Parts: sequence; C-alpha cells; structure tokens
Amino acid sequence: MDKRIPVVVIKELSETDKILTALKNYGISCAEITFRTACAAEAIAYACAHYPDMNIGAGTVVNAEQCEAALEAGAKFIVSPGLSVAVAKICQLRGVPYYPGCVTPTEIMAALDLGITVVKFFPAHIYGGLKAMKALAAPFPQVKFIPTGGVDKDNIDEFLAWEKIYAVGGSSFVKEALENMEMKK
Amino acid sequence: MDKRIPVVVIKELSETDKILTALKNYGISCAEITFRTACAAEAIAYACAHYPDMNIGAGTVVNAEQCEAALEAGAKFIVSPGLSVAVAKICQLRGVPYYPGCVTPTEIMAALDLGITVVKFFPAHIYGGLKAMKALAAPFPQVKFIPTGGVDKDNIDEFLAWEKIYAVGGSSFVKEALENMEMKK
Amino acid sequence: MDKRIPVVVIKELSETDKILTALKNYGISCAEITFRTACAAEAIAYACAHYPDMNIGAGTVVNAEQCEAALEAGAKFIVSPGLSVAVAKICQLRGVPYYPGCVTPTEIMAALDLGITVVKFFPAHIYGGLKAMKALAAPFPQVKFIPTGGVDKDNIDEFLAWEKIYAVGGSSFVKEALENMEMKK
Repeated sequence: MDKRIPVVVIKELSETDKILTALKNYGISCAEITFRTACAAEAIAYACAHYPDMNIGAGTVVNAEQCEAALEAGAKFIVSPGLSVAVAKICQLRGVPYYPGCVTPTEIMAALDLGITVVKFFPAHIYGGLKAMKALAAPFPQVKFIPTGGVDKDNIDEFLAWEKIYAVGGSSFVKEALENMEMKK
Repeated sequence: MDKRIPVVVIKELSETDKILTALKNYGISCAEITFRTACAAEAIAYACAHYPDMNIGAGTVVNAEQCEAALEAGAKFIVSPGLSVAVAKICQLRGVPYYPGCVTPTEIMAALDLGITVVKFFPAHIYGGLKAMKALAAPFPQVKFIPTGGVDKDNIDEFLAWEKIYAVGGSSFVKEALENMEMKK
Repeated sequence: MDKRIPVVVIKELSETDKILTALKNYGISCAEITFRTACAAEAIAYACAHYPDMNIGAGTVVNAEQCEAALEAGAKFIVSPGLSVAVAKICQLRGVPYYPGCVTPTEIMAALDLGITVVKFFPAHIYGGLKAMKALAAPFPQVKFIPTGGVDKDNIDEFLAWEKIYAVGGSSFVKEALENMEMKK
C-alpha cells in the first residue's frame, strides 16, 4: 500500500477531476479533501461517486458538524489538525477511521483513551520531526504516526524507513502529482 | 491602533502611575496587568479609575476565581498563558474578550469550539515563532495570533508584517517604555 | 535528597534485583518502574517488599486501570507521560503524589486546577529543555519541573542548578548505574 496521503484543497469543484487524475497517475490512490473550502463536502461526494477505487477522506475537520457533513458526503476516513473528542465519538459510532493531530503526550493519552492508536503529527517539521516522534514512541509503543507538514519527496524515505510511520501526509504530494502530469504532456 | 500589549507586573501599587505614564508616553494605550502579584486586582481597579482612556486588561488569569476578581476590578479583557474553559465561559457570558494561550492544533480547536478566534501564542520564541504560527494558520485560516515571549522592538516588525498577527505581547515593551522615559529626563 | 528519578523498564521479573541493587550502589534510592512491560505491577510489588528503604513508584501510567493496578502493587508515586484527569483524581483520593507530563501552558493550567504543582516535562530535549521551562515558569511561579528525556550525567548539573527543578528523570541513570556496577567487578 502506498503510504502517501495527499492533502487536497479544492477551491472549485471543477478542479476535482484534474487533481484526482493527477494523483492516480502519480501512483496515489487516496485523497484527504480538506474542509477548508466551501465546496469540500460537494467535492468529497463527487470524488466518491466518480473515483470508487480511491480511498477518499475528509481533512481539517474541526468539529462535529463538519464531521457529520463529511460522512454524509461519503468520506471513508476523517482527519483533524488536532484532537476533537466530539469528532472521535462520531467516527467510533459510525466505524470510520479517525486520525486526529496529537503533538504532546497529554494529547496522545487522550487519543488512547478514545481507542485511537494512529495519530497525525502536525506540523511535523515545527514540533521536532522524526526525532520528536521517536521520543514520544518510547512511552507509547502502541502508537503509529502520520507526520504532516514539511514532508515531501526529498525526505519521505527517511520517514517511511521507521516502522512506526503509518503514513505521511502533505499538500506537497498534490503539487508533485500535478507537476508530474504537466511534464508528461 | 497600536498592536503592542505590554505585560505589566505590578509588585507595589505605588508603581502603577509610573508604569502607565511611561507606556502612554511611549505611545501605548493598553496594558495587561498580570495576576502574578498580590496587588493585581487593586492595580487594575486603580488603573481603570485613573486612566480611563487606556484599555486595561488582566493577564496570567489561570482560573475562574481570578477571572471573577479581574472582571470585578474592571478588566476590559482577559489573557491566560493557556486555555481555561471555565475562564472562557465566564468571559463569553460577560461579553469580555478572552485571549487564551494556544500552541497546539488541539488547543486551537478547543478555542474555536468556544467561539474564540484570537489566541495568544506563548512562549512564542520557544514554540517555533512566526514559522510555527504560519504552519498552524494553514488549517485554521480564521485564527489570529498574539505572539508573546521573545518579542521586542528589534523583531516586532517581522511579526506585524504578517496579516494574521492580531497584536504582540511582552514585558519588553514595559522595559522599553521605562527606559524611554528615563532618557527624556 | 538525591534528585535523580531513574526510569526503570523491567522486561523480566528476575532483572529487578540486579537493577535495584545497581541503583542503590550508584547512590539512587528511588525507582520509577514503568507500566510499559507486562510484569510491571509484579515488579513494583516485589520491589516494595524487598527494598523497603527505596521510594518505588510507577511510570508510564496512562489510564485509571493502570493507576489502580500500580497502587494495588504498592507504588508510592505515579508518573504519566502526559496529564490524565482520571489518574490525577485517583491519586488525590488516595493521597499519592502524581507527576503528570505537561508541556504547554494549557496543560500546566489543567494540572494546577487539579491541585498539582510538580509536573514532568517530557520529552525535555525535544520541547526546548531548560529554556522552555524557564519561559513557562514566568507565568507559573508556583510550578516545579521534572525534566525527562535527554537528561544524563553530562548535563544534569545544568538542570539541578535551577531552583525550579524538583527532580530529573531518565532511563540514562539506570544505564549509568549498571555500567558503574560492571566497572567495580
């Protein structure tokens, strides 16, 4: 399985095809469409309908309302920049994976209390990167990480070499995929 | 509007006039009087009575009891080093701005849940400074920051140049104001 | 009083004697036995029975269940990588000291709300070390710290020189104690 989770910001619904096609051509079959834009829910519904072989999730989900809208649109996983207990509970009830951002031991313990063992580590490059995750892994051997922020094709191998990396996230993969498609023209 | 919020520690009530006069002469019409000292509430009440044209608030408010005391004394805004849900709810009820310190995505999401979109970022120089706030701003475009800690006249312009800076805080502005008054003698 | 708290990971119950004897010979009369291993509770009970002059506590306690097991085994203090409100309440009820990991102002305020004024600062070397604790001490003059992570015999004096250091934690002290015993053979 490819471990790259591209953070996709869709400003206009019409961009969806171009971006998802570029990702597929770049070998990525997953997309975290962020709730930072007005058309996010619509884009998720469109992506789920037209790209059934892709694993489409929702990102930047910061509250229960957005979570409900994302699940309604068909999101197969939910990502938050931080940990929302309300979002965690909805996802648990609906059986949908939830990857909350946790960067301190207290936040990781709160995630564990909710039955979550895979956490996003964001912004990874700011909060100490791989060195920080390795320090956090000592007391939490059961936890796996999704570093996001500052991860790109130049340093991804360093992250993936560590067995506690569940996946890596970033908008850089979208940029790379679009550039890759441009070059092939 | 001047965007400097001086963190004022008043050890003796008698110092209040000297400090507030120095701030006014230095072009600052606002003061965050911290609850780190025994005479804080008294100093706030004095400042509100004698400097009605200044925006007097309370800082280092860490619990509901201190918040009630600060509001009773006349504080026009409340600042905490971190986020207290209890303090946030009192401020919301009383219609007083509350600027809690939030340094992780989880803490910012908790603030947003409470209707807060301006957060203190403290200690700014320790937790990655401007680079960290810019990374945090990506998933939280609605949030504005008040970096505090390590901000002084030498680097303030770098912070103020970014549109997401609501204000900058620090005890350095008090020191600068007092030195400025000393030099003019 | 020696201020070193060795973080002891006991993989086999049979190692307990060797490690605790090494610590005593190295001048350390305290041990934080972590709940990262299956035999942790058993090791704590054994240590309490056979080393009554040592201050035996439990570390890496991440939830109420582990806390109850640790106290049942005789742990005289409880340490967590982060702050668990549930663990804090059990410890308060039972009159046992609880040292939770707190690395942001919000987490320290949550600890203060629970009546806790000594916090672990972990991972210390990742989150800014002494410089970070000094910045955090400004608004929280009542708080004392137990830096853990990256503290060893080469830099311990730098930490202990600051009056706000309650103790220093780390697995390095166990390694040093075992090496010391090996050398004396």
